Amino acid sequence: MTYIQSVKNQQVKEWRKLLTKKGRDRTGTYIIEGFHLVEEALQSRQEIVSLMIDENVDIPLHWDLQAFPTTTITAEVSAHLSSTETSQGVFAICRIPKFNVSTLKGSTFLLLDAIQDPGNLGTMIRTADAAGIDAVILGEGTVDVYNSKVIRAAQGSHFHLPILTGQLPEWIQKLQNQQIPVYGTALEGGVSYKTVQSSTSFALLVGNEGNGVAKTHLSLTTSNLYIPLYGKSESLNVAVATGILLYHLKDAN
Amino acid sequence: MTYIQSVKNQQVKEWRKLLTKKGRDRTGTYIIEGFHLVEEALQSRQEIVSLMIDENVDIPLHWDLQAFPTTTITAEVSAHLSSTETSQGVFAICRIPKFNVSTLKGSTFLLLDAIQDPGNLGTMIRTADAAGIDAVILGEGTVDVYNSKVIRAAQGSHFHLPILTGQLPEWIQKLQNQQIPVYGTALEGGVSYKTVQSSTSFALLVGNEGNGVAKTHLSLTTSNLYIPLYGKSESLNVAVATGILLYHLKDAN
Repeated sequence: MTYIQSVKNQQVKEWRKLLTKKGRDRTGTYIIEGFHLVEEALQSRQEIVSLMIDENVDIPLHWDLQAFPTTTITAEVSAHLSSTETSQGVFAICRIPKFNVSTLKGSTFLLLDAIQDPGNLGTMIRTADAAGIDAVILGEGTVDVYNSKVIRAAQGSHFHLPILTGQLPEWIQKLQNQQIPVYGTALEGGVSYKTVQSSTSFALLVGNEGNGVAKTHLSLTTSNLYIPLYGKSESLNVAVATGILLYHLKDAN
Repeated sequence: MTYIQSVKNQQVKEWRKLLTKKGRDRTGTYIIEGFHLVEEALQSRQEIVSLMIDENVDIPLHWDLQAFPTTTITAEVSAHLSSTETSQGVFAICRIPKFNVSTLKGSTFLLLDAIQDPGNLGTMIRTADAAGIDAVILGEGTVDVYNSKVIRAAQGSHFHLPILTGQLPEWIQKLQNQQIPVYGTALEGGVSYKTVQSSTSFALLVGNEGNGVAKTHLSLTTSNLYIPLYGKSESLNVAVATGILLYHLKDAN
């Protein structure tokens, strides 16, 4: 087992680059940290490239460190790699999965248009997972899904369902060609979500925190939905709105 | 109009203390910043103690600065008072409202048990506002509702509905005495939320991000609800769960 003590070690520098999108894109890998996420990675079929464990940390007995290249690191290296204030001292480098669109199966989809806030994106992936959605499609302008804040907010759901990037107009067309209704979301000009029956197949399209879904996308959907605002707030948080709509489409009647 | 240029000015020091709970508790006031929140404060009946405006900032013509003590500040003072990275340069000091429980009216309530994350709490207040809830009751152990991150996430909903602190067991009893059903939330041992009909009167009790609602509170409720998890995630974000449940209780059938 390799042992690394210095934050100046070249390998540590390479790992730390995975905290940036550039570093992730160049290597096709990303970094996760914390017991829960590493556990999820180990349990999933996600390809783990390597593990890094703080020498002061006791890891669960069932973690099979022999199965992966594992490096023991000091508390200082651990703090250096961490994107949180108090590191748990366990990390994994994972390969960014490639999904083959032509073989992707499913009947329920969440399409995201230019979501900016990492916490929102992670929460939406977690919510899609909870609602049993088959895949999440990220349109242009959405924050990088392997950003550490997104990963933290998603609490392991990255390992549970396919997350793809793509052109939303193509996806809207493709899904409708498969008789899957695509519901956009809009504050104005749509129909109340309550008028839509739940169904075993649907796609929900939600959008940017400030601007909502692009009008050009909304013009392509099967129909557009709004959630009534009964009080004085001007809108709902996009992750909360996504939860209300996904569970309604899944569960209602 | 007063003009303050130095971050060492005593008044600036007093204002800055409002970024801490101690400072807010001592003075009974809190600080808000940004055009949207100051606009909401001006429009509401919220008592504004004073306004502070960066000398470089153009304010909306309809803001009546004569109506309140207003201080012009430098960009440096503005940055010093701000809890964001890029200040908009407009601030208000508001009095923390006191609500008289004995005269509080309403038929729909959100009860919160030990919510820790300021973003979650703010989002839940915003969601309660959107769903037309009459009041939010904060039990012990909940993060301070006048924390700047809570205020930011709530996007002005602090000015739209009463937010009270109280003892949850007393509130559960009081609401049930008024024939208002109180629904707790639990991952286990409850009934699916779908079995509950919507109603014009209800209270929803949701709890801590890690531990959920305290068992002693759950034993007092009318019934406890869970949201089915169809995928592989272990739970929903508490603000998302609150949105799904409030809109179901309000809207379903």
